[in-house]
Amino acid sequence: MEEPRAGQHQGDAWMNILTLDDDGVVAREDALAVEEALEIRVAGTEPVITMRTPGHDRELAAGLMLSEGLAQSRQDFEVIDHLVGQPDVLQIVLKQFNAAKAERLERSSLSNSACGVCGKRKLNLEFLQALPENAEASPITRQLLASLPGKLRAQQAVFEQTGGLHAAALFDDAGNLLAMREDVGRHNAVDKLNGWALLNDQLPLDNRIMLLSGRASFELMQKCIMARVPVVCAISAPSSYAVRLARQFNVTLVGFLRQGRCNVYSAPQRLEVADGAQLPAL
Amino acid sequence: MEEPRAGQHQGDAWMNILTLDDDGVVAREDALAVEEALEIRVAGTEPVITMRTPGHDRELAAGLMLSEGLAQSRQDFEVIDHLVGQPDVLQIVLKQFNAAKAERLERSSLSNSACGVCGKRKLNLEFLQALPENAEASPITRQLLASLPGKLRAQQAVFEQTGGLHAAALFDDAGNLLAMREDVGRHNAVDKLNGWALLNDQLPLDNRIMLLSGRASFELMQKCIMARVPVVCAISAPSSYAVRLARQFNVTLVGFLRQGRCNVYSAPQRLEVADGAQLPAL
Repeated sequence: MEEPRAGQHQGDAWMNILTLDDDGVVAREDALAVEEALEIRVAGTEPVITMRTPGHDRELAAGLMLSEGLAQSRQDFEVIDHLVGQPDVLQIVLKQFNAAKAERLERSSLSNSACGVCGKRKLNLEFLQALPENAEASPITRQLLASLPGKLRAQQAVFEQTGGLHAAALFDDAGNLLAMREDVGRHNAVDKLNGWALLNDQLPLDNRIMLLSGRASFELMQKCIMARVPVVCAISAPSSYAVRLARQFNVTLVGFLRQGRCNVYSAPQRLEVADGAQLPAL
Repeated sequence: MEEPRAGQHQGDAWMNILTLDDDGVVAREDALAVEEALEIRVAGTEPVITMRTPGHDRELAAGLMLSEGLAQSRQDFEVIDHLVGQPDVLQIVLKQFNAAKAERLERSSLSNSACGVCGKRKLNLEFLQALPENAEASPITRQLLASLPGKLRAQQAVFEQTGGLHAAALFDDAGNLLAMREDVGRHNAVDKLNGWALLNDQLPLDNRIMLLSGRASFELMQKCIMARVPVVCAISAPSSYAVRLARQFNVTLVGFLRQGRCNVYSAPQRLEVADGAQLPAL
């Protein structure tokens, strides 16, 4: 269930999840931050797509145009509004539009990011393939998952003293840390890790666990799927689209992995709670 | 001083900053996460630029190529390395390169993001103008700054229950909250706020304070400068490039604004510590 509830802000989506802690497993509904693609059509250019939380789309588009130097006041817009009946398509017509500005816009790709698909003309899922039902040789226990953040922190402490770096780490299915990378951009940390795997003939990562120091977005999931990672864990929250992608491509997505507790958002069949006991389906 | 110290990881940069707390002002050096532009030249396409923390650049580029479906193993690369003497330029030659892939690459813009300039062919600062020496009518006190995070949280609590949203808020110079926006992408939150200002004839924001719920990156600073915000505060860490940009364009950048304490990274002349007493220069 991903539709906003009546009376609720469209920034929240409610989904069925599992929560694992010392007391066992609880199936419940949880609110997730909504991440959806917005197509922005500036008359005279190719459409661009950006991920965003729905709501205030006109402001988002106006702010992007300001950042790109294409508009300074509302008088600069002939039209800035959603297409009728299309809440994820925003149309812009500028009063003063010329070829030079169009070229600048194309060059800039309206990159806004933090999502990773900024500037892409199309939301391209063509390279993605679903993972097999059980990519793991043996189920992963909650105890193993709970041990991972501490191992990441121990490794990160060597480097990180700025409070300004994201980290991603790769573990084998026994919980051994294989590689860790840090970057100001969380997508870069995952790219570096995937690139490490590629350059060291470690692909596909089909018996590995990826741990993300922060949140899980659409694009981080996309990158993990490209590298064939079956189990992705985030210390913080996943977005609604990250969960949707994980479910679509059969990736086990774990969030809020902290203090021995975690949420499971997709493909729980790769995890077990007690001796051989698999988690209930989602 | 932004060069890595001997024996230290290139992901850290040391800079002179001021720390403000109940005991007053302390000038010290602090480690910041390095954010620098990397130009990636894939033979046959236009160069693209991405922000990243230097280090493991080959892996970063290889991971990006994997994400874009352009490489699956290291055998796919003829060349993947820095240009000689150019640590911020990485050259890639693919063994199998064709026009269709080139077009796909151009379309995708190698978007990696979390930085915001992903996919841009050039790092474009042409629209940015320095702020005047003192854009504020009256100096901002530490007590006023310290009151802002609580006001953001109070407003955010209405909406945020997912743990997955970034927020940006705009205050007047008396500390009154004018507008707040949230999004899964922190750049979107700032774009929405700037777009709100643009569409409501509030630009330039030259007597306003912007508060960011997370970290401050190059591109968030760029957006604030476009909207002429003189004082930018982040709850978490700024990157090295955010600080450099803030200093270059005379924006007061405050970081780690929490528990009544904060760091000042640039343009401290807009702040005062006691009755009329300005902060020492940086």
